[in-house]
Amino acid sequence: MTAPAPTPVVHRVSDLRAQVAAWRADGLRVALVPTMGALHQGHLTLVRHAFTRADRVVVSVFVNPIQFGPNEDFEAYPRTLEADRAALATVGASLVFAPAAAEMYPQGFATAVTVAGVSEGLCGGSRPGHFSGVATVVTKLLLQTLPDVACFGEKDYQQLQVIRRFVADLDIPVEIVGVPTVREDDGLARSSRNAYLTAEERGVAPTLHRTLQDTAQAIRSGAAVDAALEAGRRALLAAGFASVDYLELRAAEGLAPLAALDRPARLLVAARLGNTRLIDNIPVQGA
Amino acid sequence: MTAPAPTPVVHRVSDLRAQVAAWRADGLRVALVPTMGALHQGHLTLVRHAFTRADRVVVSVFVNPIQFGPNEDFEAYPRTLEADRAALATVGASLVFAPAAAEMYPQGFATAVTVAGVSEGLCGGSRPGHFSGVATVVTKLLLQTLPDVACFGEKDYQQLQVIRRFVADLDIPVEIVGVPTVREDDGLARSSRNAYLTAEERGVAPTLHRTLQDTAQAIRSGAAVDAALEAGRRALLAAGFASVDYLELRAAEGLAPLAALDRPARLLVAARLGNTRLIDNIPVQGA
Repeated sequence: MTAPAPTPVVHRVSDLRAQVAAWRADGLRVALVPTMGALHQGHLTLVRHAFTRADRVVVSVFVNPIQFGPNEDFEAYPRTLEADRAALATVGASLVFAPAAAEMYPQGFATAVTVAGVSEGLCGGSRPGHFSGVATVVTKLLLQTLPDVACFGEKDYQQLQVIRRFVADLDIPVEIVGVPTVREDDGLARSSRNAYLTAEERGVAPTLHRTLQDTAQAIRSGAAVDAALEAGRRALLAAGFASVDYLELRAAEGLAPLAALDRPARLLVAARLGNTRLIDNIPVQGA
Repeated sequence: MTAPAPTPVVHRVSDLRAQVAAWRADGLRVALVPTMGALHQGHLTLVRHAFTRADRVVVSVFVNPIQFGPNEDFEAYPRTLEADRAALATVGASLVFAPAAAEMYPQGFATAVTVAGVSEGLCGGSRPGHFSGVATVVTKLLLQTLPDVACFGEKDYQQLQVIRRFVADLDIPVEIVGVPTVREDDGLARSSRNAYLTAEERGVAPTLHRTLQDTAQAIRSGAAVDAALEAGRRALLAAGFASVDYLELRAAEGLAPLAALDRPARLLVAARLGNTRLIDNIPVQGA
């Protein structure tokens, strides 16, 4: 059996809108899956999930410059559009939207969408301006596409909460759906940045998820939250992580810091392994 | 002949969307005219203009708290919904959308739309946060209504430029139309805030427009821009204005400050008369 033809791609907002309008005229429901490309099984799972909610699925592929800090990996971030189109064809994605930076941010661009509260601390603490960059580009992608539904991975849990917040606040007419994280067999969350890891680092990386599980178990068993988090940080450093940006227990909705497991919670971590920053999170329910 | 029935009003976003969806199903074009109520002939002209571009015209009436500074006139701003509905009926407006503050900004609201460049200086200088409040509420109103076209008065010229900027930047699918300022016979720009003026102040107020005209004439005739603006400021103070927030020559598109009349320009003024802050602006074309 031959591989399916790569998913069709458009680069202009006007072409995206024309295709979505044609689908609408046929009474079809449309989903959007925003990505930065370098697609892996996690993204393909988002597309499969999107097809349970819509007839056509648009996947945007855009490495968004304004969500990277000056010392981050914008230049190094993998760009693999042809491989992405081939992978998307295996799950039947309907269209790739891959705009150039000048299509998204033409000369004179001057607007930002910012979200207080939920975007502060965690990744918002270690990556200033990151969530404003995310909120701005996702607002644009949603208003360019005007989908019925948009799917995002829970792997970027704080991002998902930020998106839910501004979509509600700005009355963007779309349903936001979070999809559980897809993991390797050893528990490592799928991430385009895993490609940065050396073989040795790849061996250490699953400690991130294991530490989340161990810490959650300790908290569920009644350990003091602060002590459990401190033990988790020490375990990461002992395993070979260079530093821990954060390991925190937060409310699952709204991300308020929690000193005790008194409501549905999320345990979130970001840590550096060599030059690579990895993030992960898991739900923590009370006993 | 009896007065027409007041324009129908809805207070909920869901009711607004249901009405707009019904019009869309009938193939009708929809316009939005955002206002803060206290409607005058300027607003009614916006509605008439909107009917040249659409089959149905929604007028929003919402005194937006987040565009007022802490020492501004939010509490005092006139609220005259029943008179507004009666006035709108005389021009055939289709629907009034008059949300409560809690409908627009429910508990937990945390998002802002900000615009750099064009929102800086002028009213953005004397009213910090004002244009972010405007951009945020207009984004909401546009996404709640999803009109084909939205009409704004040129009286708030910087606001119009800010709106054009973020609508383009965020890809909000609407056409923005600016409508020339409506004036009293003596030249005073129609404004809801004119109601604040004492009889004596009302006699002084037309000096604002006359000074714009005189200053523009001087610049067109070759006077140095700085000297002409300084003469204009002195004229306003001499006429009885308490202070001049600004009197500036700016590029008509993008509002860059101009030292000479080397492109289509706008002359903009804000000045205080007693406790009332009045603004106005006129186009200045080279000879």
